[in-house]
Amino acid sequence: ATYFGSMHLAPNKVLVDSIVRLGQRAVVGKVSMDRESPDNYIEETQQGLADAEDFVEYTLSQQCSRVMPCITPRFIPTCTMESMKGLAAIARKYDCHVQSHISECCGEVSFSRHLHPEHRCDALVFDEAGLLTNKSLMAHGTLLDDDAIRLLVERGTSVSHCPLSNFFLGDACFRVNHTMNLGLKVGLGTDVAGGISASMLTSIRMAVVNARCLRAHKLAIKGGFDDKRTARFEVTPDMEVDVISFKEGLYLATMGSAKAICIDDKVGSFEVGKEFDALLVDVNVPGGPFDIFDGDSMEDQFEKFINLGDDRNIVEVYVQGKCVKRGDDFTGDVIKPVPVEPSSEKKRKAAE
Amino acid sequence: ATYFGSMHLAPNKVLVDSIVRLGQRAVVGKVSMDRESPDNYIEETQQGLADAEDFVEYTLSQQCSRVMPCITPRFIPTCTMESMKGLAAIARKYDCHVQSHISECCGEVSFSRHLHPEHRCDALVFDEAGLLTNKSLMAHGTLLDDDAIRLLVERGTSVSHCPLSNFFLGDACFRVNHTMNLGLKVGLGTDVAGGISASMLTSIRMAVVNARCLRAHKLAIKGGFDDKRTARFEVTPDMEVDVISFKEGLYLATMGSAKAICIDDKVGSFEVGKEFDALLVDVNVPGGPFDIFDGDSMEDQFEKFINLGDDRNIVEVYVQGKCVKRGDDFTGDVIKPVPVEPSSEKKRKAAE
Repeated sequence: ATYFGSMHLAPNKVLVDSIVRLGQRAVVGKVSMDRESPDNYIEETQQGLADAEDFVEYTLSQQCSRVMPCITPRFIPTCTMESMKGLAAIARKYDCHVQSHISECCGEVSFSRHLHPEHRCDALVFDEAGLLTNKSLMAHGTLLDDDAIRLLVERGTSVSHCPLSNFFLGDACFRVNHTMNLGLKVGLGTDVAGGISASMLTSIRMAVVNARCLRAHKLAIKGGFDDKRTARFEVTPDMEVDVISFKEGLYLATMGSAKAICIDDKVGSFEVGKEFDALLVDVNVPGGPFDIFDGDSMEDQFEKFINLGDDRNIVEVYVQGKCVKRGDDFTGDVIKPVPVEPSSEKKRKAAE
Repeated sequence: ATYFGSMHLAPNKVLVDSIVRLGQRAVVGKVSMDRESPDNYIEETQQGLADAEDFVEYTLSQQCSRVMPCITPRFIPTCTMESMKGLAAIARKYDCHVQSHISECCGEVSFSRHLHPEHRCDALVFDEAGLLTNKSLMAHGTLLDDDAIRLLVERGTSVSHCPLSNFFLGDACFRVNHTMNLGLKVGLGTDVAGGISASMLTSIRMAVVNARCLRAHKLAIKGGFDDKRTARFEVTPDMEVDVISFKEGLYLATMGSAKAICIDDKVGSFEVGKEFDALLVDVNVPGGPFDIFDGDSMEDQFEKFINLGDDRNIVEVYVQGKCVKRGDDFTGDVIKPVPVEPSSEKKRKAAE
């Protein structure tokens, strides 16, 4: 998982403790925000930077390679350039991840332009701050234009596609195929602040619906959106280019997401030599949410799980080769964290 | 439920038997199709009409007011005008329901125009056949223009909105608010041939997503769909008119659907005097799909069920005041069907 925690330092440390104890693999960040926020939910800039660094050090001190700290400016409207630049320096110092929201909806983008008239788009603001790194993950990106996408690609920055959130908050649909064709690394997320489900299965289904919605956009544009919508138009090949299948949705949730947070050398597929992160799925689980019939091929069964399955089908969860959850119960097997590799530790020390 | 059965008579009778036995309330139809269908899946016109009438008589002979037969031409491309007129005559004779698909996707609509160049739209073809009655329910209607909608309203015909199916097969999004403002009766359906879930909960969620997609259409049209999608545009009030909430989705699934099949005098709400069709929902069911916290109001709990709930939360199902399903088990309590009202029986006899 990649977590946006809260703004306060202490609860984020509890979050890290829980992740370590439950055996999750996660990129986790304490949210930073020092402007345009409610009076009772805002940081003073320098204190915020100190807390962000404290959080990074606390997380690294766990010596657990599964749990990676992340610099997390909430988004441009709530972070001053001073704060963003300070956060970028911390990210450089510890070689850690960066996450934020980018070009998410009309209101946000307009307000960013108002705050930063010197920059044409969110991507340029983040870039000035030094927050577009090859370990940066930006949520949404629904309103990114191609130049902005090319800048992200150049910096090695990825986007977390959160389809359900886009429907509720995002104003537009993210173009998975288009941006991936431009070289963008795309992972799949939920952003439950905007969506209604934290399940990656829901997100896969909604990524497919989002892509079909892009197709419908083009038909709506061609056919008009007035009272005369009888098909004077037809589906043309250019309308199909955004469509993705459930298999491509699954790719986004696995390899796509592993690439998006730069851990595709360790997880994301079952290649020999990678760490074993996996689900044990029982499509025939008693009281399960769908039926398997005699004629169902392995692929049919798999498609049913992706489209109709839920937590009942997930009988075991493995992280780094250990079973961390069996049925409804966390196994508690994961007592001793696997330490971080010496190489990255060395790199961190060298940077200090 | 409203069922589109298969084309063959015998299995549809088994379907009726099952519905009666399990205690469901249903409008059920044997599908009719006598042209443009696979060689091994087509009826001869007169035999098809005879089978359709046989099916209606068989269903009525159950003397079960919960189970209503339905004349079911699959859709215009697969039914000759002779067949459609014959089916309409049967519907009139028995005063029974009619269901079909209407103006569903570009390919279907274009092919209908090719087959019926004398009519501007599907609605006029069905109307010539006499199939637009006040007991007619048309699936989809995504490409209906306002004149066609007004014709449906005039005839008392309703539309079954199948949002997930529309995303996969329908080419366009159905405008719930717009069509209801024109006076259309709108119910909620699944059409699992085009969708991926038979759950009415999924359909409610997808109706909300469908409505948000209509909003995104307008933004896409205004903002363009080219490489420069940075928000040079803003959300305007006219973009919000199609948006519906989960509560309106629930209305479509209950009162909306009851009105759509003309049984809102009997079910669809908990008004005194209506028959008791209901779900007993346990939001705190052990092993359930979501958590309830201390601060959650009744409305919060309700919203969680609609957006995150599933069959685990539905602990009992009532139809006509009887518990027909408890947990995973059908109760089998419903042995004796409640007979049809003498008035409709009399009306049927009079029509013969």
